[in-house]
Amino acid sequence: MPILVMKFGGTSVATPDRIRRAAKRVGVEVAKGYDVIVIVSAMAGKTNELVGLVDDISPLYDAREYDAVVSSGENVTAGLMALTLQEMEVPARSWQGWQVPLQTSSAHSAARIEDIGTENIAAKFAEGMRVAVVAGFQGLSPEGRITTLGRGGSDTTAVAFAAAFEAERCDIYTDVDGVYTTDPRICDRARKLDRIAFEEMLELASLGAKVLQTRSVELAMRYNVKLRVLSSFEEQSDEAGTLVCAEEEIMESNVVNGIAYSRDEAKMTLISVADRPGIAAAIFGPLSEAGVNVDMIVQNISEEGRTDMTFSCPTNQVARAEKALEAAKAEGQINYHELVADTAVAKVSAVGIGMRSQSGVAAQMFKTLSDEGVNIKVIATSEIKISVLIDRKYMELAVQALHDAFGLDKVA
Amino acid sequence: MPILVMKFGGTSVATPDRIRRAAKRVGVEVAKGYDVIVIVSAMAGKTNELVGLVDDISPLYDAREYDAVVSSGENVTAGLMALTLQEMEVPARSWQGWQVPLQTSSAHSAARIEDIGTENIAAKFAEGMRVAVVAGFQGLSPEGRITTLGRGGSDTTAVAFAAAFEAERCDIYTDVDGVYTTDPRICDRARKLDRIAFEEMLELASLGAKVLQTRSVELAMRYNVKLRVLSSFEEQSDEAGTLVCAEEEIMESNVVNGIAYSRDEAKMTLISVADRPGIAAAIFGPLSEAGVNVDMIVQNISEEGRTDMTFSCPTNQVARAEKALEAAKAEGQINYHELVADTAVAKVSAVGIGMRSQSGVAAQMFKTLSDEGVNIKVIATSEIKISVLIDRKYMELAVQALHDAFGLDKVA
Repeated sequence: MPILVMKFGGTSVATPDRIRRAAKRVGVEVAKGYDVIVIVSAMAGKTNELVGLVDDISPLYDAREYDAVVSSGENVTAGLMALTLQEMEVPARSWQGWQVPLQTSSAHSAARIEDIGTENIAAKFAEGMRVAVVAGFQGLSPEGRITTLGRGGSDTTAVAFAAAFEAERCDIYTDVDGVYTTDPRICDRARKLDRIAFEEMLELASLGAKVLQTRSVELAMRYNVKLRVLSSFEEQSDEAGTLVCAEEEIMESNVVNGIAYSRDEAKMTLISVADRPGIAAAIFGPLSEAGVNVDMIVQNISEEGRTDMTFSCPTNQVARAEKALEAAKAEGQINYHELVADTAVAKVSAVGIGMRSQSGVAAQMFKTLSDEGVNIKVIATSEIKISVLIDRKYMELAVQALHDAFGLDKVA
Repeated sequence: MPILVMKFGGTSVATPDRIRRAAKRVGVEVAKGYDVIVIVSAMAGKTNELVGLVDDISPLYDAREYDAVVSSGENVTAGLMALTLQEMEVPARSWQGWQVPLQTSSAHSAARIEDIGTENIAAKFAEGMRVAVVAGFQGLSPEGRITTLGRGGSDTTAVAFAAAFEAERCDIYTDVDGVYTTDPRICDRARKLDRIAFEEMLELASLGAKVLQTRSVELAMRYNVKLRVLSSFEEQSDEAGTLVCAEEEIMESNVVNGIAYSRDEAKMTLISVADRPGIAAAIFGPLSEAGVNVDMIVQNISEEGRTDMTFSCPTNQVARAEKALEAAKAEGQINYHELVADTAVAKVSAVGIGMRSQSGVAAQMFKTLSDEGVNIKVIATSEIKISVLIDRKYMELAVQALHDAFGLDKVA
């Protein structure tokens, strides 16, 4: 029988009633003839509760014990979901990561999936079991200990199962009903997309559109797993939600498919840096070691052997960045006149695979912002994305103007 | 290094602070030179919370899924305890049942321990680890699924580890400071015993003295594991608590060491039963099939081919017993004139291994009760116990009078 993977996040399994609702959705797919692999998160709030206990006991914890503790929330949900399905007379059983086994690296709390053993579950499907409920977010290290996959681990678990079992599709049930052209809270003309390409989703996810974790989208792209994002709180048809898929499966598309933003950006400028070969490495090496996530980088033209270097990073990393740069200056590794931090900026990006073949998107973006009187502080471009750093107070205005300018409220 | 097993129940690990207090006790034993195996229960209330979720979802649950869900509480405590010990710079790690492995039968929710693999833990002790923290109450079935051991499972886990590792002793930390000659809430002259024989503890446990589960005492007796019961809420010396041990290790003992009672007893009498060979089997077979726990049985002398048969059972099983007996009568298996139930009775017992060698205990017990005007309804004796059924209103009086009569307030 064809296999479908269905993943339910923490809010979708927060109470016995919600678990029953989710199980009903699973029952619908079983009735259609699918063998289903259900991946569950911990009930909403449970993982935080467990993390809180660990923090109370040991701020600098042993990640192996942390993993053993926090993975228990998913085990509870997996058992409860299997019981709920059995109550509905759907043959089901639960699997914990070590029982599958889902083999991972030894990088506790941020483990990488290395292999999924399909034999045990496949044998049960062959015996007539219709649903395998798997505890998400967890796996087994080569040393036989429990690992967790880190943030978004359950989405990643789901995609990995879909790849390993060659599932027809991987449905991610969440608390939003799909991927939007932009954040509907900021722009009321935001429109749900029926389809979006993996590459676009990756850019949007990395920009803070929290629907799917970057890592799960990367994995889906690599194994060409069709991902569908849909709401567990609405009645669903076969066409519900948004399908994240390969570019080839999208017939028509706007040039720009999404406007993303990030509020917590800071712009930092090193004024009058001695310009010499290797200066970029001398600046960004220490920042990287200090754990600063540098995003955009701009270097102005050099005059008389000196230049200005500007970069952006998350607002809460500014202090760390300053400390790292001052230390590098004190050690003589770099030389600059002044370090200026602007923490009142935001990043706005236009994303679309259509940019590859169509020129003029950047020009249109700059003109739109200019017409609204929004000054651009930094520009960065990639193959399918144009990002600008602007004053934070103009962020909503910029998102709305760009959404209109690129016709995102209209279907392609 | 000598090995010590220490078990902490749910109230002893109910909060991070209590876990720290328990870990300190473990640290004291490590400092003395022991390698320690710590067995932990779930934090107080957690198992009930999980059972509640299962009951909400599936009243007639699949015991395999039930076990997968309810075992998670112990996993949390095991990780937290290991982290706490690490914070105190005691080398420690946690083990879940399947990691040990602790092999059990497939009888989910009431599994029997079949084998404890000592290799993994012994290898870690050899590498310098000082404490193995093991999640109690759980194991691994031959089918690779998680089992639980049922009521008192963590005590049983602790004793089984002590036997498998040939531990010097198994310390059970709980919320009472030892085993008493009787319930201090009923008799203020109750005295804590320094030592008690396995056989006596078994009789007391089965009579409702809730300090240790019968099953763990049986296991300790079979493998001659020294069990110490002590409080996790008091500063402890090496002589604290009560040692449950083989008879030979108790130098001096009173003839009677404990007065136990059970409040929820009912006395049932079948009046004028046709007396013939096999009649007892015809009566108690159906009761056993109906799940009635028959305790004492008395048969009066037979007159003219008829007799009266009296037995006791828990009060809440009276309705079930009546139904089973009436059905057996309707089917012609048994024949009696009348069935009388007296639900206002209690059982009081005197327990002591000294009874084996000293006569007159029964006589002294009957005289004591007679002097207090307490009428005895049923008598049953075993090698080391004499039990009587009396009106419930005299229960406290009887316990106090017997405690005095046998000099239990005085050390032997």
